[in-house]
Amino acid sequence: MRIKVINPNTTEAMTAAIGHIAQAHAASGTEVVAVNPARGPISIESFYDEYLAIPEVLKEVQRNESEFDAYVLACWGDPGLDAVREITHKPVVGIAEASMYAANAIAPRWSVVTTLKRSYHMVEHAVQKAGLHDRCASIRCVDMPVLACEQDPSAIIKGLEEGGRLALQQDGAEAIILGCAGMGGMDEKLSFLLGVPCVDPVAAGIRFAEMLVGMGLQTSKWLTYRAPEVKERKGME
Amino acid sequence: MRIKVINPNTTEAMTAAIGHIAQAHAASGTEVVAVNPARGPISIESFYDEYLAIPEVLKEVQRNESEFDAYVLACWGDPGLDAVREITHKPVVGIAEASMYAANAIAPRWSVVTTLKRSYHMVEHAVQKAGLHDRCASIRCVDMPVLACEQDPSAIIKGLEEGGRLALQQDGAEAIILGCAGMGGMDEKLSFLLGVPCVDPVAAGIRFAEMLVGMGLQTSKWLTYRAPEVKERKGME
Amino acid sequence: MRIKVINPNTTEAMTAAIGHIAQAHAASGTEVVAVNPARGPISIESFYDEYLAIPEVLKEVQRNESEFDAYVLACWGDPGLDAVREITHKPVVGIAEASMYAANAIAPRWSVVTTLKRSYHMVEHAVQKAGLHDRCASIRCVDMPVLACEQDPSAIIKGLEEGGRLALQQDGAEAIILGCAGMGGMDEKLSFLLGVPCVDPVAAGIRFAEMLVGMGLQTSKWLTYRAPEVKERKGME
Amino acid sequence: MRIKVINPNTTEAMTAAIGHIAQAHAASGTEVVAVNPARGPISIESFYDEYLAIPEVLKEVQRNESEFDAYVLACWGDPGLDAVREITHKPVVGIAEASMYAANAIAPRWSVVTTLKRSYHMVEHAVQKAGLHDRCASIRCVDMPVLACEQDPSAIIKGLEEGGRLALQQDGAEAIILGCAGMGGMDEKLSFLLGVPCVDPVAAGIRFAEMLVGMGLQTSKWLTYRAPEVKERKGME
Amino acid sequence: MRIKVINPNTTEAMTAAIGHIAQAHAASGTEVVAVNPARGPISIESFYDEYLAIPEVLKEVQRNESEFDAYVLACWGDPGLDAVREITHKPVVGIAEASMYAANAIAPRWSVVTTLKRSYHMVEHAVQKAGLHDRCASIRCVDMPVLACEQDPSAIIKGLEEGGRLALQQDGAEAIILGCAGMGGMDEKLSFLLGVPCVDPVAAGIRFAEMLVGMGLQTSKWLTYRAPEVKERKGME
Amino acid sequence: MRIKVINPNTTEAMTAAIGHIAQAHAASGTEVVAVNPARGPISIESFYDEYLAIPEVLKEVQRNESEFDAYVLACWGDPGLDAVREITHKPVVGIAEASMYAANAIAPRWSVVTTLKRSYHMVEHAVQKAGLHDRCASIRCVDMPVLACEQDPSAIIKGLEEGGRLALQQDGAEAIILGCAGMGGMDEKLSFLLGVPCVDPVAAGIRFAEMLVGMGLQTSKWLTYRAPEVKERKGME
Repeated sequence: MRIKVINPNTTEAMTAAIGHIAQAHAASGTEVVAVNPARGPISIESFYDEYLAIPEVLKEVQRNESEFDAYVLACWGDPGLDAVREITHKPVVGIAEASMYAANAIAPRWSVVTTLKRSYHMVEHAVQKAGLHDRCASIRCVDMPVLACEQDPSAIIKGLEEGGRLALQQDGAEAIILGCAGMGGMDEKLSFLLGVPCVDPVAAGIRFAEMLVGMGLQTSKWLTYRAPEVKERKGME
Repeated sequence: MRIKVINPNTTEAMTAAIGHIAQAHAASGTEVVAVNPARGPISIESFYDEYLAIPEVLKEVQRNESEFDAYVLACWGDPGLDAVREITHKPVVGIAEASMYAANAIAPRWSVVTTLKRSYHMVEHAVQKAGLHDRCASIRCVDMPVLACEQDPSAIIKGLEEGGRLALQQDGAEAIILGCAGMGGMDEKLSFLLGVPCVDPVAAGIRFAEMLVGMGLQTSKWLTYRAPEVKERKGME
Repeated sequence: MRIKVINPNTTEAMTAAIGHIAQAHAASGTEVVAVNPARGPISIESFYDEYLAIPEVLKEVQRNESEFDAYVLACWGDPGLDAVREITHKPVVGIAEASMYAANAIAPRWSVVTTLKRSYHMVEHAVQKAGLHDRCASIRCVDMPVLACEQDPSAIIKGLEEGGRLALQQDGAEAIILGCAGMGGMDEKLSFLLGVPCVDPVAAGIRFAEMLVGMGLQTSKWLTYRAPEVKERKGME
Repeated sequence: MRIKVINPNTTEAMTAAIGHIAQAHAASGTEVVAVNPARGPISIESFYDEYLAIPEVLKEVQRNESEFDAYVLACWGDPGLDAVREITHKPVVGIAEASMYAANAIAPRWSVVTTLKRSYHMVEHAVQKAGLHDRCASIRCVDMPVLACEQDPSAIIKGLEEGGRLALQQDGAEAIILGCAGMGGMDEKLSFLLGVPCVDPVAAGIRFAEMLVGMGLQTSKWLTYRAPEVKERKGME
Repeated sequence: MRIKVINPNTTEAMTAAIGHIAQAHAASGTEVVAVNPARGPISIESFYDEYLAIPEVLKEVQRNESEFDAYVLACWGDPGLDAVREITHKPVVGIAEASMYAANAIAPRWSVVTTLKRSYHMVEHAVQKAGLHDRCASIRCVDMPVLACEQDPSAIIKGLEEGGRLALQQDGAEAIILGCAGMGGMDEKLSFLLGVPCVDPVAAGIRFAEMLVGMGLQTSKWLTYRAPEVKERKGME
Repeated sequence: MRIKVINPNTTEAMTAAIGHIAQAHAASGTEVVAVNPARGPISIESFYDEYLAIPEVLKEVQRNESEFDAYVLACWGDPGLDAVREITHKPVVGIAEASMYAANAIAPRWSVVTTLKRSYHMVEHAVQKAGLHDRCASIRCVDMPVLACEQDPSAIIKGLEEGGRLALQQDGAEAIILGCAGMGGMDEKLSFLLGVPCVDPVAAGIRFAEMLVGMGLQTSKWLTYRAPEVKERKGME
């Protein structure tokens, strides 16, 4: 099984780290190919960044599409997920959805701890779109930029520990979701520090993609996710 | 007051028509400037189209930003609305939101009639994001492409009449929202045919923008809609 | 365009102030006529007050109905709104609905700051009826009576500032709605003090009424808002 | 135990019938006093009727308040319920709420069958305010005026049977709520015709009031339902 | 009228206390028969306890079924309620549902105070299943085991007072529901201490059962609550 | 990896079939052990059946608990799921949850087709508990008993095809979930007949269990799912 994991930002070190984590969590027999677009923002921290990144993500999906069995979008906002499902039959997984499903299975309520405060609303929207706001105890932020995950991981872990502890003690959470692909690999340490299971979103994404491929499922082309109409797209393609 | 109305697709005839309708419905003293991106799909009929169009829409917002008092996104999916609110202080209006607010004021429940069947889910998402699913009696489709609004308007009106009548008689609607910017200007005829008020989304958009400008409001820069972080965006800008 | 703004309470000084604010925020070409019933409570601070006021409000709507293009109910509970829509074809606007729509356009979440604590539930009901509880970060109260808006405006502003600051810092609000018609005109000062946009409900009401009239919309008479049945109403009319 | 049942309309024959049904369903030891205002509409079929009736209902509550143990509002819209709870410590019951609670106990989903089609939205609002829209399979209407309950009961029963059968066979209902106080006493016959339990709203109201009195409960005066402020109410009282 | 009150746990002293409270709150003419299963956990404090108890509760319902007019399940999780409704035509009442309905009638929002912290999620589920989460201000716990209600009632009352006061002062509650059958009879004292009405769940259960019997209602056998299919149940019956 | 799949009913032929399907869909390296209780109903078709089965299911979980890595409850009602999570640290998966998560990834809306009509409410409750009612287009029933899956599979497939077609054509579904463990293995044929992906719940269960084990997750023991209190459970254990 070959799964393409797409980091929507253009920071190659982060792509390499995500690929490493994904391969480490994948089943034997799964080959992970981690890529990122050549163009676009070095991190996704605003709706502006997200929308600039999506067309480049779509190109990464279309490149050598026949060689892959599934796609994982490695950014907690699940950017462009609906569009990706239109342009391929293969299962497409967003790490936000995948990590919420995993958390649902091990705790009645959980919290998401993410990076910047300004991402609060973006995370909230992802939770509401998934219909899981009753399961989400709170959204907390470490208030550090996404790239700090690469550049200062111990500060991120400290922030996760503080945010996670407040979520457990004040908000009613019983498990923690790491709300950024850059936090992939920090689940074990955080789980040790907090005493509750922590969900690694990259691991959830790769494993959920394996689940769908293993079940032989493909995206429904009945109506909404049909291939886009053939038409002129000026200056594109 | 100068308001820039952005048609996210690249069909100039449609932009001209939208600009005409918007100016006709604007208050005296309001100058409408209707534009469309040079690059991108000739119509927005899938999530794929939408995401390809958004970065070009963002550029249209940034161009001569100081000369305008407000922005109207003239596509019923309100594409990129959150991102536009990050890159300008001026009020930004999506025609979906604006037309639902107008409909709420004149009927307890209303239906949206849009173009292609595949857009059902996109319209549903816009309604749910606005929190107004309890007010939406149904979503119906004329099952014709967006550009038929320009090329075969009488067929579109016939489809609107049929869909609207079913919405009134079977679904519990008491008013109709035209669910596509290309339907701008068809409200009067449809209202005559159906005997209920019909909401023109382009008119709603321009009038709602005027309302916000008239109130002296600007987009909150407290947290979520702050300007995007200064950072490298490879190959862009 | 002539718009009748109805203050449901019987305090004429408040009516004058509301009329002044409404006219100041109206477009040029709009004539505001502010009235209040001769009978009824001097302020609306309970459901009891509200229900006593409504029949008098209905009479104000019926008086010289042909001379007006729209109605604005200038009380944050939108008292009797459904009934007013039955007895006139003209658009009818409640300031609660109008100010929430304006706030939605400039912030992802907002708080309402109102007068008495006992009005908490009334405000909550207005928010829920509008389907916007997910957008409402909190409801806060300055804990002073409605008429303090006229008699001690600086104390009200101080209370608004305190409540607004808590809403921004603790509750996740990014804009503030003034939750009482008597607070009309205080938005500018409060906005200066807090650093976020504040929505003046009287301004929102008059501008939303202009929007609907400008669009040529009338209340749907399809079913729910048909004229009341002709029947005996003992001792009335 | 003495319970005052207030018919908000001014049709004395209907009041007598409601009083008769209420007494017939009351526990031994309960004295029912059925009254109606002297002023107001002869039937409640619009929001306009409802709001005209409420101030007169409030006066009926205040008259000899010390002589009663509880109040029942005998109209399916529960008109003025919040205000009545402000002006007395005694438990106050709306027949809409009471009949939905009874239905919840005997069926997973139920439908409400009411009189005029235009009341659909009013019933829907009562259901939503009670938080029970997931339990409500549908709202159906016999499309006859309220007073037909007195003047042509066999036609009403025929309409209830037709509407009820559709609710059971098409909408997923498993019990029927009679959605008008005037339908009091028709539950037994309808239940025989349809083969499912039917909830008589007058019986539900009187029995729910007995339940609250029997439990020794009074309306909370902690905040929302405190007595209205002492103030001038011009031309009133 | 004979009502069987079933305490699902096997602590006979608690059954006796519940029976005493139920009889004290019942109408004259109602005979209460309080029972508990011979097998099963001595208290219900986990889902595990609950599921072990339910089959024994079902047997208690089936025993001498013809001699009773209604059933009350005296545990705040309403264990097995759906199944009990399948095996008898008589009305079946859960004390959770009954006490929430009573609280709705006397306060806009209320809190539930229960025993162990681990029961938080179980109480939350009961509230959500009833559709009443918007009415529930909070769930608070005294953090003592269920049997402390029998063995150390003064400590329980102290905990209820503390939790109740926080609910009133911080959470927006205006009434308190005692969230455990073992707290039956503590409502009066707590109400005196807190100054708001407190709902005794045992009293609510017995009175709600009387209401349904008094209305002549039986459980709908239309579909969901039909008698279970005749089939082999190995090693059972 | 060893996963215990528990068929809650006592029909061994069905257990064998479920085990076969589960093993066929499992990853290489996963060993499936399918069991059923010795006592209890031969099929789960009512709440009564469900509650009788759960204590026996709990014993199956406790038997040789150290030898397994995860548990799958193979009945679409996810019977006793919360309790199982209390008595083991290992991940526990219900096939209802697992199949809804899989369906979410491949279609915007899906329908569940189950066996008996009376199970409608049980399926609805599972969907609502998962927070996914907005994703569920409809619930349809083939109206045949559970054991027909073993005894007359071609009739079940015919019923699935009819129900599925109506779901696609009338209800807005774009994928189908097989709503009974006994339907395991029918997904491929149904998918061929209908032209949309169909979710096999047994496959979903086993693959979701593998996902959780692969991620190294265990059930949170922070609060709700702690081990049940040590106490006397009369006549048990």
